[in-house]
Amino acid sequence: MRVGFIGLGLMGEPMARNLAGSGIASSLILQNRTRAKAEALAAEIGAMVAQTPRAVAEQADVVITMVPDVPDVEQVYLGKDGICEVGHPGLLCTDMSTVGADCVRRIAGALAASGAGFVDAPVSGGTIGAQAGTLSIMAGGLTGSLEALRPVFQTMGGKIVHCGEAVGSGQTTKLVNQIVGALNLEAVCEGLVYAGAAGVDIEAVLEAVGAGAAGSWAWSNLGPRMVRADNAPGFKIAHQIKDLRLALEAAEAMGLSLPGLRLVLGHFEQTRDAAIGNGELGTQAMIAAVKNA
Amino acid sequence: MRVGFIGLGLMGEPMARNLAGSGIASSLILQNRTRAKAEALAAEIGAMVAQTPRAVAEQADVVITMVPDVPDVEQVYLGKDGICEVGHPGLLCTDMSTVGADCVRRIAGALAASGAGFVDAPVSGGTIGAQAGTLSIMAGGLTGSLEALRPVFQTMGGKIVHCGEAVGSGQTTKLVNQIVGALNLEAVCEGLVYAGAAGVDIEAVLEAVGAGAAGSWAWSNLGPRMVRADNAPGFKIAHQIKDLRLALEAAEAMGLSLPGLRLVLGHFEQTRDAAIGNGELGTQAMIAAVKNA
Repeated sequence: MRVGFIGLGLMGEPMARNLAGSGIASSLILQNRTRAKAEALAAEIGAMVAQTPRAVAEQADVVITMVPDVPDVEQVYLGKDGICEVGHPGLLCTDMSTVGADCVRRIAGALAASGAGFVDAPVSGGTIGAQAGTLSIMAGGLTGSLEALRPVFQTMGGKIVHCGEAVGSGQTTKLVNQIVGALNLEAVCEGLVYAGAAGVDIEAVLEAVGAGAAGSWAWSNLGPRMVRADNAPGFKIAHQIKDLRLALEAAEAMGLSLPGLRLVLGHFEQTRDAAIGNGELGTQAMIAAVKNA
Repeated sequence: MRVGFIGLGLMGEPMARNLAGSGIASSLILQNRTRAKAEALAAEIGAMVAQTPRAVAEQADVVITMVPDVPDVEQVYLGKDGICEVGHPGLLCTDMSTVGADCVRRIAGALAASGAGFVDAPVSGGTIGAQAGTLSIMAGGLTGSLEALRPVFQTMGGKIVHCGEAVGSGQTTKLVNQIVGALNLEAVCEGLVYAGAAGVDIEAVLEAVGAGAAGSWAWSNLGPRMVRADNAPGFKIAHQIKDLRLALEAAEAMGLSLPGLRLVLGHFEQTRDAAIGNGELGTQAMIAAVKNA
């Protein structure tokens, strides 16, 4: 199968590498806004480079897109020289960015008009998971389309979950993941702020709480970083804010209040706004906002 | 060692059974507000019964107390015919209830005046953990006192963490546990309410989110119960409210705001107030309040 890959950022580049290394693509065509980056990678992994998303779609059976935000996805699919200009029944596209269900439904609709297929397949696991090929992939779309894409996804992900036949189901699941992860982080922050103020042995607290019914990935992985004041990004605050804004907009459109989501989004925004560059810190840096709440 | 056990409720009774079964007590003296309950258990496990907490302390080297709330603990230690009336240097007491650090500091102070020792040792793990002898025990007090109590604790708990030399350290750790667990539950509720409104495959969401960086004990254990509308109590809302009120009072005394704790406490109280008997439901029933937020 001829595969195109658009968007070679911190996530896309290692994903494209793993795809190339698997050998499942008879040809691999790369495209990136900064063309030099695509050319350097193509030379290294033995791929071709295309000038535009349209040119990728003209040469590929499957096109993968992995770009930062909603306007980028819209540009790649719906913009000038975009994929939708050359949609046809033999084309199957999948967007793996986190952009919300509304955005991918619009794109799927535009592609469907030409007979092309679409699956939304956002991921979790970060750059480490992208490099290791152990991403969790949350896919929304027709079973047949997902099965056609499965060999491609398997080169990138350890866990592939089909979240529904409707396009957007993957996005919804990813945003649920972001809501839950953010509130778990609020839990860690409030617990550690309380423990710190009360003057208890913080290592003992980390051990005792993590072992039981209050345990979470966030507690075990981000709690110790908070205690060491290590704000290096596993996941950046700026990206978390983008994802939670998408979730909040969708929640509001559905008539949901979700007060915890609002609260934690506010804490992330306060952290970002406290100093230039704070949006680049890891999400665990939010504890400062909780301390000052 | 002669051991006294005061408070034979849903937690205390199985704890006393495990203690009796271990054979580490040369004699075991039970006391309970409802005396008939103590007598029935004593006949079954081969223990004695005392009329008052004071009478227990007169016959024991170690006294364990496990009662519902602050006024009960105060009555048992500081009230008429209470333990403190007969404190002496050979007596070591441990309270395993969840009553907050202030309460146990007062009791430790009253006991210390007579030379008696005290360790606060609240637990997590619920009635299932109490029956299985797998409670997590969070202990605060002098290392020597904890080591003297360790054989007793080992009959009840799978994990014993020393949270600090200061009495109250166990209580603080337990309340951190309750704050974190409650906010993890808010996370589950908001995530599932969002997923439900968006109409995604809920089983796929449970699987995908639980496997990654948004995973938690609450998600994996209480999420499925919410989906099945199974509100049977693992931990009752009324008890959760009691614990979170203790945490909030202590937080306010320390000048902390902890807005997430306030939010989730409100959701539990709304659930309790929505119908008579709702305080007896499991904490997962809170999802109704989040849905209506």
